[in-house]
Amino acid sequence: MQLAMIGLGRMGANIVRRLMKDGHDCVVYDVNQDAVAGLESEGATGAGSLAELASQLQTPRTVWLMIPAGLTGGVVDQLAEVLEPGDIIIDGGNSNYRDDVRRAAALKDTGIHYVDVGTSGGVFGLERGYCLMVGGPDEAFTHIEPILKTIAPGVGDVERTPGRSGDLAPEERGYLHCGPSGAGHFVKMVHNGIEYGIMAALAEGLNILHNADAGTREASHSAEVAPLEEPEFYQFDIDTAKVSELWRRGSVISSWLLDLTAAALEANPTLDGLAGRVSDSGEGRWTVKAAVDTGVPAPVLAASLFERFASRGEDHFANQVLSAMRLQFGGHQELPAGDVLEAGGQKADSTQA
Amino acid sequence: MQLAMIGLGRMGANIVRRLMKDGHDCVVYDVNQDAVAGLESEGATGAGSLAELASQLQTPRTVWLMIPAGLTGGVVDQLAEVLEPGDIIIDGGNSNYRDDVRRAAALKDTGIHYVDVGTSGGVFGLERGYCLMVGGPDEAFTHIEPILKTIAPGVGDVERTPGRSGDLAPEERGYLHCGPSGAGHFVKMVHNGIEYGIMAALAEGLNILHNADAGTREASHSAEVAPLEEPEFYQFDIDTAKVSELWRRGSVISSWLLDLTAAALEANPTLDGLAGRVSDSGEGRWTVKAAVDTGVPAPVLAASLFERFASRGEDHFANQVLSAMRLQFGGHQELPAGDVLEAGGQKADSTQA
Amino acid sequence: MQLAMIGLGRMGANIVRRLMKDGHDCVVYDVNQDAVAGLESEGATGAGSLAELASQLQTPRTVWLMIPAGLTGGVVDQLAEVLEPGDIIIDGGNSNYRDDVRRAAALKDTGIHYVDVGTSGGVFGLERGYCLMVGGPDEAFTHIEPILKTIAPGVGDVERTPGRSGDLAPEERGYLHCGPSGAGHFVKMVHNGIEYGIMAALAEGLNILHNADAGTREASHSAEVAPLEEPEFYQFDIDTAKVSELWRRGSVISSWLLDLTAAALEANPTLDGLAGRVSDSGEGRWTVKAAVDTGVPAPVLAASLFERFASRGEDHFANQVLSAMRLQFGGHQELPAGDVLEAGGQKADSTQA
Amino acid sequence: MQLAMIGLGRMGANIVRRLMKDGHDCVVYDVNQDAVAGLESEGATGAGSLAELASQLQTPRTVWLMIPAGLTGGVVDQLAEVLEPGDIIIDGGNSNYRDDVRRAAALKDTGIHYVDVGTSGGVFGLERGYCLMVGGPDEAFTHIEPILKTIAPGVGDVERTPGRSGDLAPEERGYLHCGPSGAGHFVKMVHNGIEYGIMAALAEGLNILHNADAGTREASHSAEVAPLEEPEFYQFDIDTAKVSELWRRGSVISSWLLDLTAAALEANPTLDGLAGRVSDSGEGRWTVKAAVDTGVPAPVLAASLFERFASRGEDHFANQVLSAMRLQFGGHQELPAGDVLEAGGQKADSTQA
Repeated sequence: MQLAMIGLGRMGANIVRRLMKDGHDCVVYDVNQDAVAGLESEGATGAGSLAELASQLQTPRTVWLMIPAGLTGGVVDQLAEVLEPGDIIIDGGNSNYRDDVRRAAALKDTGIHYVDVGTSGGVFGLERGYCLMVGGPDEAFTHIEPILKTIAPGVGDVERTPGRSGDLAPEERGYLHCGPSGAGHFVKMVHNGIEYGIMAALAEGLNILHNADAGTREASHSAEVAPLEEPEFYQFDIDTAKVSELWRRGSVISSWLLDLTAAALEANPTLDGLAGRVSDSGEGRWTVKAAVDTGVPAPVLAASLFERFASRGEDHFANQVLSAMRLQFGGHQELPAGDVLEAGGQKADSTQA
Repeated sequence: MQLAMIGLGRMGANIVRRLMKDGHDCVVYDVNQDAVAGLESEGATGAGSLAELASQLQTPRTVWLMIPAGLTGGVVDQLAEVLEPGDIIIDGGNSNYRDDVRRAAALKDTGIHYVDVGTSGGVFGLERGYCLMVGGPDEAFTHIEPILKTIAPGVGDVERTPGRSGDLAPEERGYLHCGPSGAGHFVKMVHNGIEYGIMAALAEGLNILHNADAGTREASHSAEVAPLEEPEFYQFDIDTAKVSELWRRGSVISSWLLDLTAAALEANPTLDGLAGRVSDSGEGRWTVKAAVDTGVPAPVLAASLFERFASRGEDHFANQVLSAMRLQFGGHQELPAGDVLEAGGQKADSTQA
Repeated sequence: MQLAMIGLGRMGANIVRRLMKDGHDCVVYDVNQDAVAGLESEGATGAGSLAELASQLQTPRTVWLMIPAGLTGGVVDQLAEVLEPGDIIIDGGNSNYRDDVRRAAALKDTGIHYVDVGTSGGVFGLERGYCLMVGGPDEAFTHIEPILKTIAPGVGDVERTPGRSGDLAPEERGYLHCGPSGAGHFVKMVHNGIEYGIMAALAEGLNILHNADAGTREASHSAEVAPLEEPEFYQFDIDTAKVSELWRRGSVISSWLLDLTAAALEANPTLDGLAGRVSDSGEGRWTVKAAVDTGVPAPVLAASLFERFASRGEDHFANQVLSAMRLQFGGHQELPAGDVLEAGGQKADSTQA
Repeated sequence: MQLAMIGLGRMGANIVRRLMKDGHDCVVYDVNQDAVAGLESEGATGAGSLAELASQLQTPRTVWLMIPAGLTGGVVDQLAEVLEPGDIIIDGGNSNYRDDVRRAAALKDTGIHYVDVGTSGGVFGLERGYCLMVGGPDEAFTHIEPILKTIAPGVGDVERTPGRSGDLAPEERGYLHCGPSGAGHFVKMVHNGIEYGIMAALAEGLNILHNADAGTREASHSAEVAPLEEPEFYQFDIDTAKVSELWRRGSVISSWLLDLTAAALEANPTLDGLAGRVSDSGEGRWTVKAAVDTGVPAPVLAASLFERFASRGEDHFANQVLSAMRLQFGGHQELPAGDVLEAGGQKADSTQA
């Protein structure tokens, strides 16, 4: 079928390529006309404006936006002026599902359908296909299903879930109509929230392995930090790159994120050059806020988000406050270098608090 | 090569079968002689006692224990009396790695090698092979490597990690010499700690999806619980079984635990009959304690462990204390049924705290 | 000075009494005219409507709302119609600070000042005075300061903070102009978020004391739950009521919440009759959402909130998911009653995962 | 009565002074004979060795150790050689309660009583008195009660808990017999665990206030970090020193730790010079391990401990792992400086994960 793509960055362009390879007809637009020209050379039809793009499409028109979330609202408004009742706008970007709910409501009177598609797959999507979480009216979903089928990974070499039989369900092909407008990005949001949690579980576990030799370097601990008890049990020098690779085979925690971890540690076993300031892109925050709103406990997801904040130093003032309190009840300024504990000379330190 | 297996429960018996299928020669023992007879009928050599078992083995003897962790110490002691210097005892069960360290030290003077093998794979291991995390002296590891190769999953259909080339490393075949005695179970322990975290991330995320319809049932909230703000954003009726299936294809969180989740929800979409009292088997606890000992932050792993404790009601007294405090500063006993808020009639409730 | 109070519930009425006792002149209104009559008999001037109330006040009029947060918006709108430029509306209830920001903006063109006052003190406020966190324009704050001074606890018997000298600052008298409209309830919100954290810290600690006898009841643990290691270290039968009382004197954690805990445990040492379903009133949620919005790590505050959610059973589906996963990889239904571990008969249980 | 004090550091010396002021007779010893001489000049009897100290005491002898936990075991062993059945050794330091249990068991055959006293109060104890948590045999507790009464704060100006009447109970005077040997330090351990949680709650909350102006500095956020939504709600410039002072009066969270926080922020409002690397002294770790052992959920206490670990950079490797994973699935190295998002030019960033 025919699809218009707005936004020819890496993901938009790759989706267009994947669609054309499967025989779909693509009209493309980007403010960067070089990107348009590039895809024209690969077989797409270019458009110089949204109006031109609209004129090149048969009705009902289907227009996929693959642009930064901050710009989506404006482009939807512009599109609404050149589209007609029954046409379909698909937001494939990273919108907050609340914006989908608002936009679908705002478009209601125009008769234009609004569909949100959460996509997962990263840069591997061109090859693997994208996992598609779709929200919107039934009618629009049915109309765009051929496109979704092409973009999704398909059944691939994933073993069929026991108990499933007969025709493949959409979710077995890698796309799913999750509910009305907003449901797609809601499910995608939670997907990313879970992603944060899994990543943190792996990272914390590897950090414990990384420190399994703590018993060999105990001496460096200062008098202000509890000494390692039973150092004889922390004498291991674990190779985290090899362990990550090992766990890919037959372990309970085998997963794509583990595959990536193994690849990262293989490429850079000491992780040199990484500052460990971990970004977050919004979905983890929205997930925690949704949990808070609905009264659902999510301590693991929240902790994984807060670890990222702390990795960027956002815990600094809190830590200063803690140090300041300890100075208060310990009754002393920070330990001078030579202040060593000796028998019979108990310091009035914080441990008496 | 030749191996003796002590403990013919499901895992021990399956490992014997996997070994025999690959041409190894197995001597088997269990206090349950029916289990011994069963494997004899499949080609193993049975033994009626540990002494008999020892007499049936060529030196250096290799004896694998696959028995409950609580019994391992006693059997190791008994074995030490019938084995000789250079022989190898392998603990393939779920021992705490600290017991390995202690046992290896205790055996040191006997000249008997002690090897600990953490195994992951659950009941799927017979077919998939077991992921093997090995601790012990180099010499013993080298000697038992042919057995490990057979029990491990092998390279399977797992894609090779980018950057790796040439001969397959042991970790690519599913077994790894992680370090001296104890290192195998240490790595297995952390593996399970991570497993808890990943499971919790998935469970919390699915719970958020499960409650994405909170806006449709707001009325049931009492005056004592904060009402849902903006219920219009929580109107989704998400099918968690379908979403789990969907995420198996192309998503970032695809993983074996997700496969199992999809299977569980396919078999029982409403999870009827499950009380949600979640057991824990020790490794998660040991992981958190290792993190605490070594000063490594592990909030996600700890939170996942504590969620399990709470699922079994172990938070009850704490919650009672919280309710008791609220009664104190709210200055009233629990709300009588008819105590409804009305305009101008502000209750002295906890929100004024 | 003169103040109008709208909302004569326990807190509103107590504030009026506290004001009249200090010589202020109060006009009062409530939809419940009995409440109005009651305070008239104590010396207040009653009003039968908002218009009447407005007519009884000298300009600039000062009107304090002490009504449920859900009603405040409507009453502010009605008041705006009977007040004049320069008049002051004070919201002393539990509004979300975001509503304050919105209302102040909406009132801007009318010339009416909007002041938000977060109040803490619970039912003890009549006697102790209320801690007042104020947001709004300087001019309005200055005008109402005499009232704030009366309602606040004053310096009381709280020891002066070292380094402070000279005249008492407002914060030493128990009220503070925290910033523009919204700042008062923002600070109050964070106060309550901290309150949740402190309460949880106390409750968790007491729960650990409550279970310090775990070693005496180990036998009740099932095979599915990790047995207590080293039960000899958990043989204490701690009296939590006495310990709470003890800590009130000289300990680092002495606090008003501890006072309340000691009182609660003195009155009901076993906490009989408390179901432990802990309510939350909104501020804890808003605090966590503010932390998430601003990228500030708040794992303790979030964990304390999530514990409350879980205490009300909101973790149920997540726990069911965990049990379901364990059934999958353990390969068995729940343990039948007679399934006891025996030597050599290793169960294929989850501990091999 | 008569008491021997071993260890004349700040706390030991202060306790001796407090005892002498109340008429008790003190024999003192320290490896630092200057410390001994100092207290002799204040009225104590000095001893040059443990044997001499023993000879100066009437039976049953009572010897209080106030020395670093790491040295206590050795001194107890030495004391056992110069003491007799019925004598009492008191460990007033910061021992792990497990060591108390072990020491009491080891002394059993000697007939010497072992009493552990957890003390809280920091450097303020000389003036305020120390909160005393006592473990040991009834007989020994009864014998030393006069000393405990003197060292404890007494009833002070703390209001009596409602419902209590008649003679003051020991816990109302600030000391309590918590149970057999180990119980004192167990209760003290949990006290400190709670202390960590309360401190963290205060620190996190103040950090949120500190960042309440996030909306005024949004521009500094990079494309890799989720931008602040609704910056209009984060425009507050909160003075945390004043707010801390304010909360001391009438608020629900008033507490000694808040007093200290107010003092710290008054002395150094910007907390300049504090690196925010927060020490921990062992009890927090032991508390979390006790919770894990006994299956008690303690997410708040654990999170507060882990925050301290992270403040010292112990999360670094985990954060590097997270960054490494993100690089993998984002398919790109870190953002070059000029890579700015523009309309229609969607980056293949992590938000598509």
